Amino acid sequence: MQRLSLISLIVDDLPGAITFYGDAFGWKPHTRHDSLVFYQGNGFVLGLMTPSGWEEEATGQPRPGPACVAINLPSPEEVDTAVAQAVSAGATLVKDPVTVSWGGYSGYVTDPWNNLIEIAHNPDWPITADGRTLLPPLEGS
Amino acid sequence: MQRLSLISLIVDDLPGAITFYGDAFGWKPHTRHDSLVFYQGNGFVLGLMTPSGWEEEATGQPRPGPACVAINLPSPEEVDTAVAQAVSAGATLVKDPVTVSWGGYSGYVTDPWNNLIEIAHNPDWPITADGRTLLPPLEGS
Repeated sequence: MQRLSLISLIVDDLPGAITFYGDAFGWKPHTRHDSLVFYQGNGFVLGLMTPSGWEEEATGQPRPGPACVAINLPSPEEVDTAVAQAVSAGATLVKDPVTVSWGGYSGYVTDPWNNLIEIAHNPDWPITADGRTLLPPLEGS
Repeated sequence: MQRLSLISLIVDDLPGAITFYGDAFGWKPHTRHDSLVFYQGNGFVLGLMTPSGWEEEATGQPRPGPACVAINLPSPEEVDTAVAQAVSAGATLVKDPVTVSWGGYSGYVTDPWNNLIEIAHNPDWPITADGRTLLPPLEGS
């Protein structure tokens, strides 16, 4: 089954990041270690990891590649609220939410460690009550 | 609810990446566009996006930050099989799977576009039949 099970962003200041992600997005840590913290995500585990944590884990390995991450919400109004809350918690507003070419409503922020996060509503992508995004059945399938 | 809804990796060659991720990990595309493709992930949407697709989406915005991604599997044997299959499909072996300090079994590969992917078994992290990783209940919670 196609999956990613753990997705970790790199943050320089772990206590600061735990506070930021709590205030900005309501994330509650599950397990905390010296250089990383895990959160229960929507079907996978979210991680925040310091650069030194990454060095310990992956001695001599290449730096991970860039990933574009998005938080999808059930309505445009919730996007506005989430962007405002993130900025209030210390995020930098990169792009005010606007209606975009693909028919959704999307804005961008960065966390204080320059991780870029899209906050979006996509009317074509249903979200379950427990926060999972499930693509619609394909025509003919 | 704490979530990431869309996680996209950057790949230079979209048709090649669709072939690679199909052969390496069995990923089946849901929706394909000129510069990106979406897959149903375990509770979220997986994306592969070309650099030009990213430029169109995010004119003038900073490059996304690095993310460490892992595919977790139910047993060490499945890790060995998955690493071998990925390498056979064109992945570069970065680290042979070994038993690691946190008690699991983990190897690393890169895709042909230098995205680093951990393939791991974590005996403490249950995986549901539909591929979601659910952290165990905390003691006292």
